[in-house]
Amino acid sequence: MPVAPRLGEFERIARFFAPLAGPGALGLLDDAALIDPPPGRQLVVTADAIVAGVHFLAADPPDLVARKLLRVNLSDLAAMGAMPLYYLLTTSLPESCDEDWLASFAAGLAADQSEFRVSLLGGDSVATPGPATLSLTAIGSVAPGRAVRRNGAVAGDTVYVTGTIGDAALGLAVLTGALEIADAGERDFLADRYRLPQPRLATGTALPGIAHAMQDVSDGLVADLGHICAVSGVAGVIEGDAVPLSPAARHALDRDPGLLARILAGGDDYELLFTSSGDNAAAIAALARPPGSPITPIGRIVAGSGVRVLDRAGRDIALATPGFRHF
Amino acid sequence: MPVAPRLGEFERIARFFAPLAGPGALGLLDDAALIDPPPGRQLVVTADAIVAGVHFLAADPPDLVARKLLRVNLSDLAAMGAMPLYYLLTTSLPESCDEDWLASFAAGLAADQSEFRVSLLGGDSVATPGPATLSLTAIGSVAPGRAVRRNGAVAGDTVYVTGTIGDAALGLAVLTGALEIADAGERDFLADRYRLPQPRLATGTALPGIAHAMQDVSDGLVADLGHICAVSGVAGVIEGDAVPLSPAARHALDRDPGLLARILAGGDDYELLFTSSGDNAAAIAALARPPGSPITPIGRIVAGSGVRVLDRAGRDIALATPGFRHF
Repeated sequence: MPVAPRLGEFERIARFFAPLAGPGALGLLDDAALIDPPPGRQLVVTADAIVAGVHFLAADPPDLVARKLLRVNLSDLAAMGAMPLYYLLTTSLPESCDEDWLASFAAGLAADQSEFRVSLLGGDSVATPGPATLSLTAIGSVAPGRAVRRNGAVAGDTVYVTGTIGDAALGLAVLTGALEIADAGERDFLADRYRLPQPRLATGTALPGIAHAMQDVSDGLVADLGHICAVSGVAGVIEGDAVPLSPAARHALDRDPGLLARILAGGDDYELLFTSSGDNAAAIAALARPPGSPITPIGRIVAGSGVRVLDRAGRDIALATPGFRHF
Repeated sequence: MPVAPRLGEFERIARFFAPLAGPGALGLLDDAALIDPPPGRQLVVTADAIVAGVHFLAADPPDLVARKLLRVNLSDLAAMGAMPLYYLLTTSLPESCDEDWLASFAAGLAADQSEFRVSLLGGDSVATPGPATLSLTAIGSVAPGRAVRRNGAVAGDTVYVTGTIGDAALGLAVLTGALEIADAGERDFLADRYRLPQPRLATGTALPGIAHAMQDVSDGLVADLGHICAVSGVAGVIEGDAVPLSPAARHALDRDPGLLARILAGGDDYELLFTSSGDNAAAIAALARPPGSPITPIGRIVAGSGVRVLDRAGRDIALATPGFRHF
């Protein structure tokens, strides 16, 4: 009997992706998909690409690769205050991504589709002689004029961040062997934070009208506050001690204070970073109560430009890492 | 003096892509972009990815790579009867795609943005150790319920195609040295048809309410009619002699009748393939008058399944090429 041939493009789409198709996707059988825009809403769209060996490890579990790809895009929607609706996906895959890989990848998408109530709208599947390259376009919606942009920070604002910072950067260091952590539970926690970010959609969608400026923390806390400050024409001050750390990150930092730069500048946190004025403090505290994500004030916006990180005594902390960008 | 460093991601975006940003793109400074859906319209979205060495040649002029990438997506919108509005672009580029490459790539996009009245909405720029991989998501609009799908072909319909078929497949053969053509003008014409497809937007957007089923010819005329037939539950018959050929393709076929399979099954035509009933013949003829694209009846839809290609005497033409798929 002949060996079963590799699945062709159409069979791959039919087997792995068509089951993920939602309303408007037309079963992935047409040239394009249809969206009925939610009445009275603006649409919000974002796209991110990831490459094996650059943004994820070729040996990473495919379901986690899929979920991280989707989640980093959902995090971008959250950072605009938008509710996710749909996504389109293009996959450029080498031969080594076989049917088992695809089945796991699709299972990861299916899990997150139910968790975040989004569905696949369309895309493309092509072959590549290079590393796996995945591009995702996410589409959400927001009330007209209510999207939270980066350019609204004003002097006097407090700077807030959700969740904890630095876990993902430490998790990557653990996964690549650059950092040793004895406690298996802490190791797994940090690795998981790198591999499976939590898009802060409940918090993000509650922040229009409250946050003056917002983005998610992907390049690193300091660099990302720098982006907000640059487009808002202001400066940022971060109180280093106020930055929220997980117990695992706190323990690692206690053992090696040199990890501070990696924590503050490492990125991949996918927490929300936003500014707001003092009269919104009660509303923000209410949002942070369980089951909401924790929200921590970490600094302030002042006149000027650039971002400073201060220690307990009010002295500048120098962060000379490749991830850190001066503004 | 130090050597000028390679441009970072932000500088690349600011220099090459921000000038392409249109309404809603927020200057490419935010996590996502905003769309105000045109009142009373459905949105139509599609995504395609292309890889150097697979879908284009690494040495191809970057402006033509950009324009083809955009145009194949616009062709998908045309095939739904949709008007294009915006696009998002993710680029995964190796070091060899330097600033000169990017400048040419962006110039190609700028040229087609004005030709087709679309603008850049967002995207991502990442580095890759592999071949250049480009993914584009195009967004258009159509009157609600008027998008033309693939599944509407019925027995008795006439099959139509715009423009001419086979030029791009012959052009690729010329560019890769698989086909020799003495006439420089014909050579250039065929190569240009491969490198710079013409999305049939004027025709496509006029066909809702007229075409029963439609898609663009990308996989090859026979395979693509097969897609329409498969989802419509009908069979297709193509009169081989009726398929419209350019003078260059006609001359090549006269010299080598063996090229017929490449012409009918080679693909990359990006012409519109649609079916309609006889009572629309006058409307279709009117659409085909200059300055409209030529529209040629090439066959018919019958009961059954699969696609046959017949010669002048009504005998089946066998097309045994890798591009041809049996249904």
